Amino acid sequence: MEENKIKENKIKVALLGLGTVGTGVYKLIHRRGDVMERTIGAELEIFRILVHSLKKERPGIDASLLTDNWQEILADDEIQIVIEVMGGIEPARTMILDALHAGKHVVTANKDLVAEYGKELLDAAEAGKCDFLFEAAVAGGIPIIRPLKQCLAGNEISEVIGIVNGTTNYILTKMFEDNMSFEEALAKATELGYAEADPTADVEGLDAGRKVAIMASIAFHSRVVFKDVYTEGITKITSKDIAYAKEFDSVIKLLGVAHNTENGIEVGVYPMLLNKDHPLASVRDSFNAVFVHGDAVDDAMFYGRGAGELPTASAVMGDIIDVARDIQYHCNGRISCTCYKELPIKDFDDVKNKFFLRMQVKNQPGVLACIAKVFGDHKVSIARVVQKHAKENEAELVIVTDKVKEYHLKDALGELRGIDSILDISSLIREY
Amino acid sequence: MEENKIKENKIKVALLGLGTVGTGVYKLIHRRGDVMERTIGAELEIFRILVHSLKKERPGIDASLLTDNWQEILADDEIQIVIEVMGGIEPARTMILDALHAGKHVVTANKDLVAEYGKELLDAAEAGKCDFLFEAAVAGGIPIIRPLKQCLAGNEISEVIGIVNGTTNYILTKMFEDNMSFEEALAKATELGYAEADPTADVEGLDAGRKVAIMASIAFHSRVVFKDVYTEGITKITSKDIAYAKEFDSVIKLLGVAHNTENGIEVGVYPMLLNKDHPLASVRDSFNAVFVHGDAVDDAMFYGRGAGELPTASAVMGDIIDVARDIQYHCNGRISCTCYKELPIKDFDDVKNKFFLRMQVKNQPGVLACIAKVFGDHKVSIARVVQKHAKENEAELVIVTDKVKEYHLKDALGELRGIDSILDISSLIREY
Repeated sequence: MEENKIKENKIKVALLGLGTVGTGVYKLIHRRGDVMERTIGAELEIFRILVHSLKKERPGIDASLLTDNWQEILADDEIQIVIEVMGGIEPARTMILDALHAGKHVVTANKDLVAEYGKELLDAAEAGKCDFLFEAAVAGGIPIIRPLKQCLAGNEISEVIGIVNGTTNYILTKMFEDNMSFEEALAKATELGYAEADPTADVEGLDAGRKVAIMASIAFHSRVVFKDVYTEGITKITSKDIAYAKEFDSVIKLLGVAHNTENGIEVGVYPMLLNKDHPLASVRDSFNAVFVHGDAVDDAMFYGRGAGELPTASAVMGDIIDVARDIQYHCNGRISCTCYKELPIKDFDDVKNKFFLRMQVKNQPGVLACIAKVFGDHKVSIARVVQKHAKENEAELVIVTDKVKEYHLKDALGELRGIDSILDISSLIREY
Repeated sequence: MEENKIKENKIKVALLGLGTVGTGVYKLIHRRGDVMERTIGAELEIFRILVHSLKKERPGIDASLLTDNWQEILADDEIQIVIEVMGGIEPARTMILDALHAGKHVVTANKDLVAEYGKELLDAAEAGKCDFLFEAAVAGGIPIIRPLKQCLAGNEISEVIGIVNGTTNYILTKMFEDNMSFEEALAKATELGYAEADPTADVEGLDAGRKVAIMASIAFHSRVVFKDVYTEGITKITSKDIAYAKEFDSVIKLLGVAHNTENGIEVGVYPMLLNKDHPLASVRDSFNAVFVHGDAVDDAMFYGRGAGELPTASAVMGDIIDVARDIQYHCNGRISCTCYKELPIKDFDDVKNKFFLRMQVKNQPGVLACIAKVFGDHKVSIARVVQKHAKENEAELVIVTDKVKEYHLKDALGELRGIDSILDISSLIREY
């Protein structure tokens, strides 16, 4: 450090929001007082907490810190770091932009916001020479953004696959290990507080889609937003599918999948059959994990708690400590947006996948030949066919395809659905 | 950035050593030329390469960069970063100290050196206001040091357990999955280049011991050196032990284990029985993984390639990029030594572990009572006893203890060995 640089002995922060994550951050800042002073040479002080209602009882919280007036926080030059843990797009977006324009550093856990307005926020941070960090926005407590931006910065990353939604991973684990139906497992997840009253964002893959958009942007150095992500949930997965997965030495996981290919970025969220030897296959219960392939590092995986009060606060706290170090060394903005490419996003119809199909057909000669012809006409080649549970008039066929383009398969299925001897196509799951 | 700060447009580095890792770093720096300019705004130039012999053929390497003269590199003020990838204690230690004293930043992959002289080197870096980074020294390509020092900095870490030696993990995987003997698996590892001609450092746990010393220092904020680490290898593990592990729904892994307890740091390397549901249990072949427990993040794990030319170079490259960013933002030394505590190291005899014991005894009445009495006298309580393969005169007993202090078990075994009816104690493996 040069002589003219002065270190702070107290760094004041404002907390926006005091829900689950906010409470965790509040606790952790108090719990780690000694660490802050010894690692960054300054005390970290929560100076203001923005809440919606000043009347609500908040046991364990110093009430004198509470305010419902954002402008008061914004105008206070003593506050150097704003920690946004309210969630949602507005007013979080406006507040963060205001804070960055005012030269305040921002740490957020807000995946919705970063997945949609990441560029705007990072640009504002760069313009204001501020830090804007969001490790907690992807996979909760699991370190993933910093590893991608720093540790693996020497790699060309070609693949990021994540189990990044704990609720659906819990549901699929219960279906797999305890033979629950989807509905039973969802009920159990709701009972334990893993699933929200309206579980749509989780079970339909929307939450995972936001996270994979953020991860793909960082891994491939090119902006991916939520609307670029194809999403498909787990509501159609049945006990029978799980049974077949077991028979094939596989599990079914809801995966956020991003590939950087020669023809553009492929990005989607959907359930997949995954061989049990894959490192992601052993990620159970509500745990999350992100698997990365880089040209130098080869395969790597990051595993841990993707949500929860303290795990998420752990990630927020890591960011706060980094901002504080940057303040002490006068180097805020040291790592900002790393999207210096503009890669196209591939139309999902052109993405190639292997498919596992289960269909009910009439048990009569020529049906398989007919199916094979339709597939052949649409360039879908078949890797395996197994006939199961043949009853007098009806048989169940399980077909696994080679890698085929999504639209070829879609077209083939459209044609198959019009054929009399094909009674039902009951499952269609991609295979890793 | 303040106005008076000037960014470099070229950052010159010297490579010390051109073995496996050095060659990987050389390749990667060339491969990532565009990334460097775009992420750090400067070109990274390999300016000198220190080698032992100038006469050796080195295909693909620009021979004009080679030198066998360290003083020439040291005296060259244009060289800002020294990348030490020679390995071993000397001359690496002296060269790194010289470089840091001369104000050059250092990146190293040298675990032997960091595990023994980490404090001296970090002190020299701090005195010289230099970066000293060593991500590659632990678990090769896996990001672990930066996650511990930054992402998880808000945690009180209580446990670090790692599979940090790929050779032994490969051997144990082959023993487990392909029913090889230790000798067969070692021969296979040697054939594939995983094991060195003298495999002692790997199979006796010394290599893992160095890595766990470094990780424990960082995780617990208190210096742990290699000589503090109790080490025990895998040479005594037999096919029979593996068979029992399977019977107990477990695997056997060589683990580097570090706990931060109220009475001091426990640190050792030894084979352990690990339930197959533990995330480390599914780490196969030559892969490495580090499992961490923190009070906020809960469980987390980092998985990947622990060795090899490009995976190790990936970690070195991440460090180089970080140093280059610090140079551009004039904040070198931003993260230095984080050992601000001085915790005692617990005598390994006082560490508590569960044990799996296999013993051959005379098949006669009273033997089990006799064993139970000896254990009881030494405060060893027994969790399970299984009698196996009873022949006419001989029986095999498998005993699993509760958690007991190492010295209590040692004393009990000493007494048991003196008893006539106990023919042999053939296995003694700790259980997680």
